[in-house]
Amino acid sequence: MYVFLPAAPHVRLLRLLRDQGPVSRAELGDRLELSRPRLLAEVERLVAAELIVEAGMAASRGGRRSTLVELDPRLRFAAVDLGATSIDVELTNGRLEPIAAYREPADIRSGPRATLQRVNDLLAKARIDGVYDRLNGVGIGVPGPVSFRDGVPVSPPIMPGWDRYPVRELLTREYGCPAVVDNDVNIMAIGERHGGVAHSVDDFLFVKIGTGVGCGIHLAGGVFRGVDGCAGDIGHIQVEAHGPACSCGNTGCLEALFGGAALARDAMAAARSGESPALAARLGSSTTTTLTARDVADGAAEGDITCIRLIRDGGRRVGSVLATLVSFANPSMIVIGGGLANLGHVLLAEIRSVVYRRSLPLATGNLPVVLSELGSRAGVTGAAVLASDAVFEQAS
Amino acid sequence: MYVFLPAAPHVRLLRLLRDQGPVSRAELGDRLELSRPRLLAEVERLVAAELIVEAGMAASRGGRRSTLVELDPRLRFAAVDLGATSIDVELTNGRLEPIAAYREPADIRSGPRATLQRVNDLLAKARIDGVYDRLNGVGIGVPGPVSFRDGVPVSPPIMPGWDRYPVRELLTREYGCPAVVDNDVNIMAIGERHGGVAHSVDDFLFVKIGTGVGCGIHLAGGVFRGVDGCAGDIGHIQVEAHGPACSCGNTGCLEALFGGAALARDAMAAARSGESPALAARLGSSTTTTLTARDVADGAAEGDITCIRLIRDGGRRVGSVLATLVSFANPSMIVIGGGLANLGHVLLAEIRSVVYRRSLPLATGNLPVVLSELGSRAGVTGAAVLASDAVFEQAS
Repeated sequence: MYVFLPAAPHVRLLRLLRDQGPVSRAELGDRLELSRPRLLAEVERLVAAELIVEAGMAASRGGRRSTLVELDPRLRFAAVDLGATSIDVELTNGRLEPIAAYREPADIRSGPRATLQRVNDLLAKARIDGVYDRLNGVGIGVPGPVSFRDGVPVSPPIMPGWDRYPVRELLTREYGCPAVVDNDVNIMAIGERHGGVAHSVDDFLFVKIGTGVGCGIHLAGGVFRGVDGCAGDIGHIQVEAHGPACSCGNTGCLEALFGGAALARDAMAAARSGESPALAARLGSSTTTTLTARDVADGAAEGDITCIRLIRDGGRRVGSVLATLVSFANPSMIVIGGGLANLGHVLLAEIRSVVYRRSLPLATGNLPVVLSELGSRAGVTGAAVLASDAVFEQAS
Repeated sequence: MYVFLPAAPHVRLLRLLRDQGPVSRAELGDRLELSRPRLLAEVERLVAAELIVEAGMAASRGGRRSTLVELDPRLRFAAVDLGATSIDVELTNGRLEPIAAYREPADIRSGPRATLQRVNDLLAKARIDGVYDRLNGVGIGVPGPVSFRDGVPVSPPIMPGWDRYPVRELLTREYGCPAVVDNDVNIMAIGERHGGVAHSVDDFLFVKIGTGVGCGIHLAGGVFRGVDGCAGDIGHIQVEAHGPACSCGNTGCLEALFGGAALARDAMAAARSGESPALAARLGSSTTTTLTARDVADGAAEGDITCIRLIRDGGRRVGSVLATLVSFANPSMIVIGGGLANLGHVLLAEIRSVVYRRSLPLATGNLPVVLSELGSRAGVTGAAVLASDAVFEQAS
């Protein structure tokens, strides 16, 4: 059986307080199976490290009342989700509850210096806003493959200048605290498992359909990253041998056929040809000269047949790839997230239809295919989880 | 990081002796990081359990000479590989070296009673032959999904009558020793990692191309079986929307296009139409009325263009599925095994070509695609590994 390396007692203690809030010493001893002297020593050490505080007395369990323990209310984690075209920053307390959130457009192709400077500016703003005095940990997701061990992006196709850029090292130095770097889809999967629809599910796939397409693989309670850190990079799986050219140099990749960029391209074509009255009207009336997935979603909601067809075609293609992955990995849940998850039920219905029809019956007998609950917050939530885990593990 | 649950000291001790042969007490203490009294107690207990023996003195390491310890030479494991049309049985000693091997044709569709009776007959023959007095453990692989935890096949498509048949329980009762049941491709992957080309490789895919097609997924040092035990069942992934009908009820499955059964069908068609002179000659001269993958391999070796094309077409289809799985799982090696691995270099070259061209460059930069070293022995080798692990774990 696969498991994560059993965490040290102090890590389990801190995670318990993070995920459940204040707990009495007596219950902590029971839950962690620690002797009373051992527990007291751990608590004393973590109080001294300013990670936890004692917080009054718990309700009686029949005998003597026990002291409550909780995470230090001054704990602050910074969670950063770098997308292809945006930066999301969330500041949380120790329990990962958001205290402040910032979002702004940004082009990842502007390179690591400029992008990380924007991140630093947002975090400086948060400090000025009084959100934190000092940060305890930073978690950041980037839209490309990452060497999790080294804390650097590796050969990221859409991130020129980022290859092996020392992201973790620079953040650690800047904020004087542990930092952790992961792929953007992996942090979404971790977030969804922490506080979303995959709560406490051990084996699931998180499929992000945004500008591009990717997959977070959550197995046996943790993210599986592959030998080179690029496991789950499903956007460049070929689904049509003679399909459109992809930015990667191949043809017919999933991402070249569906995803935010492909859908915008197809929407423009359908508007210009007049095939879609809804899209043509939008393009004519718009103050901008482009269409996005949002326009297709709105068109579909109005009953525009071409818009519905575009979504269904996309769902069929995503579904065909997922059917393969379900036969291969036999997960217990599939979560659909990312910007295009907003296309809603039409998309989901088509994906489900193909997966249920094409995968092994044994693997789909009890397989929910559901939308992300956290939506655009999945990434920062997962980044905060990773940041807190790193802080807890280094508190030895 | 993923790991197997850390094994207990006695399990690590027994595995060390299995994999490396006799080891001195002093070295055992060092390797297992056990204190001298703790080690002596473990050794004494395992000698009493008739699992190990003391075997003379080791060469001096400078100080006092240390006693050698090795697995009891009377240890015997039975390893069984049930195929769709064959039974392979191997009897091994504690170090998993084969002592006797038996192979006979058998139809898995004859059901569990008849098939397991044949297994029992072969094992009875081995006992009469003097191969063993009693068995210490039995490992068996079956050609279908298995609940590893329960020791039963689950909804196996080509094994009528076997669904949830208590294979492990019956073997345990029959031989009075631990038994273990797994999928046939999983045991091949385990075997190849123990004694083949994937020796000590943690993350690899073992692709079996036999009558059907399947994949053993070896991650972080262990087989990943999926939620329902059917992970790796890649034979029914659709590779051609309008391809031939498959036994599973769908169309265009990988297995319906390539694999022993599909290749035999295509060979017959090519012989009858006269498209392949080599195959037509074989069919005309043969005492039987059927062609097999072997005939296609021989035809290809003679330069028959149709035979080469059949193999290449198959390789391309397998390669297209593997390209998807490589992008998804980012493994560090792919091993090709099963009967059709005998098609050799033409097949391998085509698979490699598609995988290297179609997968993510980062995932293929350092990805060997190689043939199984153990060939038809991969399955029984893995079954013996599983049997020994089960025995070692139960020796507490």
